[in-house]
Order: sequence, then structure tokens, then C-alpha cells
Amino acid sequence: MRAAVYTGARTISVQDREIEPPGPGQVQIDVAYTGICGTDLHIFHGDMDARVGDQAVIGHEMSGRIAALGAQVDGWQTGLPVTVMPLAWCGACPACRAGHEHICHHLDFLGIDSAGAMQGRWNVAASTLIALPPALPLERAALIEPVAVAVHDVRRAELRADQKVVVVGGGPVGLLITMVAAADGAQVLLVEPNGYRREVATGLGLRVLDPTAIDVVGAVEEWTGGAGADVAFEVSGAPAGVDTAVEVLAVRGKLVMVAIHPVPRPVNLHRFFWRELTLLGARLYRREDFERAVELVGSGRVSVERLISRVVPLRDVAEAFTALESGEAMKVLVDIGSTAGEEPTGEPV
Amino acid sequence: MRAAVYTGARTISVQDREIEPPGPGQVQIDVAYTGICGTDLHIFHGDMDARVGDQAVIGHEMSGRIAALGAQVDGWQTGLPVTVMPLAWCGACPACRAGHEHICHHLDFLGIDSAGAMQGRWNVAASTLIALPPALPLERAALIEPVAVAVHDVRRAELRADQKVVVVGGGPVGLLITMVAAADGAQVLLVEPNGYRREVATGLGLRVLDPTAIDVVGAVEEWTGGAGADVAFEVSGAPAGVDTAVEVLAVRGKLVMVAIHPVPRPVNLHRFFWRELTLLGARLYRREDFERAVELVGSGRVSVERLISRVVPLRDVAEAFTALESGEAMKVLVDIGSTAGEEPTGEPV
Repeated sequence: MRAAVYTGARTISVQDREIEPPGPGQVQIDVAYTGICGTDLHIFHGDMDARVGDQAVIGHEMSGRIAALGAQVDGWQTGLPVTVMPLAWCGACPACRAGHEHICHHLDFLGIDSAGAMQGRWNVAASTLIALPPALPLERAALIEPVAVAVHDVRRAELRADQKVVVVGGGPVGLLITMVAAADGAQVLLVEPNGYRREVATGLGLRVLDPTAIDVVGAVEEWTGGAGADVAFEVSGAPAGVDTAVEVLAVRGKLVMVAIHPVPRPVNLHRFFWRELTLLGARLYRREDFERAVELVGSGRVSVERLISRVVPLRDVAEAFTALESGEAMKVLVDIGSTAGEEPTGEPV
Repeated sequence: MRAAVYTGARTISVQDREIEPPGPGQVQIDVAYTGICGTDLHIFHGDMDARVGDQAVIGHEMSGRIAALGAQVDGWQTGLPVTVMPLAWCGACPACRAGHEHICHHLDFLGIDSAGAMQGRWNVAASTLIALPPALPLERAALIEPVAVAVHDVRRAELRADQKVVVVGGGPVGLLITMVAAADGAQVLLVEPNGYRREVATGLGLRVLDPTAIDVVGAVEEWTGGAGADVAFEVSGAPAGVDTAVEVLAVRGKLVMVAIHPVPRPVNLHRFFWRELTLLGARLYRREDFERAVELVGSGRVSVERLISRVVPLRDVAEAFTALESGEAMKVLVDIGSTAGEEPTGEPV
């Protein structure tokens, strides 16, 4: 089989590898599609070498079918369509013992800390499998993982129907949060300075503001009759995005911190005090988030297909990373199934 | 009667004023003691002139007895010991309509936005009154207001018994939060660099760390078996205090922002993301916080008497402000009842 291997900053090589049989408790997945996400870009830039190493099969947004079962695996069979919740936790640290396994102190994130999904056959613990509806095209199913991120973020806010929500940042996760919140009955305003991203958002029927052209805080104040928004999601990663997300909130409003801010940001703590705001960090997901994501995508209530900018063959994976960097692509999938030397398993989107 | 009047930066003058009868819905209080708090110091420094003006009777931490009833006041009688929740709200703004009256967009804070308690007789709306237990000495009762602040802060954290708590900053509010949290069954560690304040805390039987001498984050890690604290209260107002409060927290830990940070502070948002932390702004109090404060102080479960560094006569009020600035006093009370030209009403502490 062939695999995309990160071999150091800005180099991804496609290599031939032996197919290993699944170990006890594992299944082998015939990978169909693997998406490229922001974290993969960070890896590509060499920012995460300490965790990833320089001989790593990366990728963690995926879909495929079960190809083989290891010993001691019950309840699954070959041919079933699946995706993977790419987490393994220790079960013994304080976070795990408190029931927060997804924030395990020793979390193994598949595709970062151990081998990922950009290979023809991927062996994973059966406990990570998420069943997919048979009718769901596997291209769309490769986006279940980022939808689960969005579901988790929205769940952290304990969003209620009819609440007014501002999403700051219209990349893939920002768009998905917007769609998940809307599916939960919220009214959502997206804020995004990039014209291409605004166009995609508009094409999805979302209401989007350009912060370089209008006064977002004033617009939200008007929209909410002077109250401010109930919930804001900071998904931009930019200092100005943090300011906007704080300033638009109503008394007792909630800010969910989704973006990764690599350095400390100036935060208007006086506003937190004055309006009794809440800031909630949100990281990854739990099984219930994946299950809800499958439901939302499977039923079409969150339509992910328009987020897929391009599907590239495995041999072009390095170019796919370069294309993503340009900011003129939303989600790029790598077609593993048709192009990794195995029989195709993907279905048309 | 006599009144302490703020007349511009660093000047408080004691003036003779006419006693006005209470209006409809008001009661007149024969003020016994009025405490000086950090906000009063800000006023004294001239930082709040836009709100306060330059002919203001300030003060909002107080105790006294009802001296007269205005028209349309039911359920109260002269001679009863009371304190005041010094808030008046509009009832019509979005915050009030959402049930968050204490964060009213047009909040009138008595002693800042309108006349306060540093005067012999104080007319207030009967709706602001909080009844005091007859046996509670009025000196102690003047601290009910800051205890209500601490109760509100602890309530925001939804603290549970046996949780491990770090309080950053050992001024009056920090000490009271420590005592209220301990009364709720939490285990509390106080962090305070000032030697005088640490001495007061130690005298109260509290466990206190000097952050200039030991590694607080390491100490909390050891104390919590590697987990981190469940709740931290930032009461220092210092940038380093924010860092400490963030770094000591366990996965899903809560940081209650009590201190006023006049300028934006660098905040490690990555840590909020990584550990799914929560930041909660906490401002003032609600009636239930005052009622709980009366219960805690009245029963002696929170013993405020050792926080009272000094009781000064009204004529020395300006010197009291100067003494507080030195940082060598915890809580200074102004004895209004014995020294404002009225009969004494205070009882020995």
C-alpha cells in the first residue's frame, strides 16, 4: 500500500509500505478519503515536530470501510462504512479519572502522536470506530470529524434555540459551528474578513459580515436590540477576533474559545467582570459529539458537501497542502481509496 | 448632621448638612458604621470623577438602624438594625429583562452614582434594606456588603464541598472569599506576596503561600496529586496574578475574575483551550448573596472581626484613606453613629 509520510518541514513524501495485520482489539480500515485540516498544516510547517517526528503518517479526518478484524473484536464486520474518533487515553490520569478522557494528560491523538489515516490500510483500536449510515457518501463522511469538533463547541455553550450567536472566523470549523448552531435553532451571524471565505459562506445561505467594512459591534447591538449576543465563538485565532468576540456579548454572554492562540493575547478582563461574561475553552470532542455529527450530516441538516473545495489523488498530497496555504480552499480531501493501490471504495459525493 | 464629602482628587471634607426627610418608599437610616473599600480608594484617587462628581457623599459598606419611615413603606419599623444592598436598577434594559438586575445597563450604585452612607442620616429605598440579626454587633455588620461580594463570587463558581481552591490575592475580598469557600466545605490555599496581609491571613487560620518565595504552580500540583485546582479566584488585580490563576487550574477548572483589571491583560488562551478551562466574570451581588452573608456572619461561620484593622471617627476620614493606601490596614471603618453629631447607636464589637 502507499502512504503519505511527513518527513520534515514542508515535505510530504508518498511511500510504499507493507500492510500490517490488525493486532488484538484492532480493526484494519480500507481508507477511502482523508481530509487535511489546520493541524495538519501546522505539522507541514514543522511546528509540531516534537510530537510528530519526521517519519509520520499523518491525517485524522477520514472515512473508509472495515477490511479486516483483529482478535477479540466483537460487533463489527468487514465492509461496514466507518469513521474514527482519533483519540486514545490513559484512563489513569486525573483528567481521565474525572471523566474528561478527551483531555487526558497523556492523550494519544491518532495522526499526530501515532500513525494516521493517509495510508491505504489503517489499523486502529475497534473502540475508536464510529459507524456510518450506509447511504452516506464516504466523501461527506470524511468531514464527520470536523463536524464533531463543531458539535462539541456548540455543546460547551449549552446553546438554546433562538439564542443569538456570533461566529468570529469563517474557515471550515467556523462554517460548521455556524451550521450546527443553526441546526440547533440559533440565529447566527458569521464574521469573516476574507472575501473567498465570505463567498463560500454566502453560498451556504449564511449571514456574514465583513469586519473590515462595517462596525461589527454596532451591527450586533442593533441586531439584538441593544442587548448583545448570547454566545460568541472565537475561531479566527487573531487578536482582533478575540476583541470582537468579547465586545459583542450580552450580559452573562458566553465566549467559546475554539481557535488555537499560540501566544498570550490581551483580553479585556474588565468587560468579563462588568458584564459577568463566561469564557469556555473547547477542545476536540467526545463520542456523543461524533454520534450527533453523524446524525446531522447523515440527515442532511448540516450539508458539508459545499465545504469540499477539491479532492486530490494521493500522489498530489504535497500540492494539496500548498493549495490550502493559499487560503483559496476550504476543505481538501485526499482520495486514498482510488489512488493508494487498492480497489476504490469511495462513492460519488 | 455631618457628612464626608468627596470634593475632588485626594480631598474628603467633613461638612454639615441638613437632614432631609425620607421620600415615599424610602426609609431614613441612622448610620452606625461605614467601611472604606477599594472602590472608595479609586474615588479618592480621582479615577472615577466622571461617575462620582465632586460633591459626593460616598460609602456603601454600612450598618445602622432605621430612624424614620417615608410614606408607603410597609414591613419595617424604626430602631431595627439594617444594612443596605446599594443597588438601584432600571427594570427595563435587556439585562434587567433577562433577570440580571445587578448588571443593569443603567445601574445606580449608591455611594458612587448617588449619595452614599458616610453621613449621619441616609435616605434609601426600602427595597434596598437587608434585616440584621439583633444580636449582631453593628461594627461587624458593616462588613456584610463585602461578604456578599465573596458569597456571589463563590456562587459563580458553583463550588462543591471538598473541592480544592486557590485564591490569588489576600486583601479583604480575597480573605472573605477564602473564608466563605471554607465555610462551604472547600479546601483553600491563599496566595499573597504582601507580608502584612499574609500575617493577617495566618492569624485567621488560613493556609497562605508567598509567591515571591515558592513555586505556587508546583505547590498546587503537589497538593492536588498532579490534577490542579478545581477553582481559582483572581482577586489581585495584577498581571502575574492572572497567570497564576490560569496555571494552577485542573482540566475543566474554573477561574472566577473578581479583581478589576483596568487595562487588557495577556491571557494564556491556549491553556483555556487545552484544559477546557472556564473564566467567569463576577460582579457585585444579588439579594440572596446578602441573605447568605448575613447568615454566615451572624452565625460566626465567617468571622469578620479580625479584618477590622481600625475604627476612626468621622472627622479623621481623610486620614483613614491615607492609612489604607499604605497597605498596612485590612478594613477601616468610619464610626458615623458616635461622631456625626447624633446619639451613638453602635454596639461594642
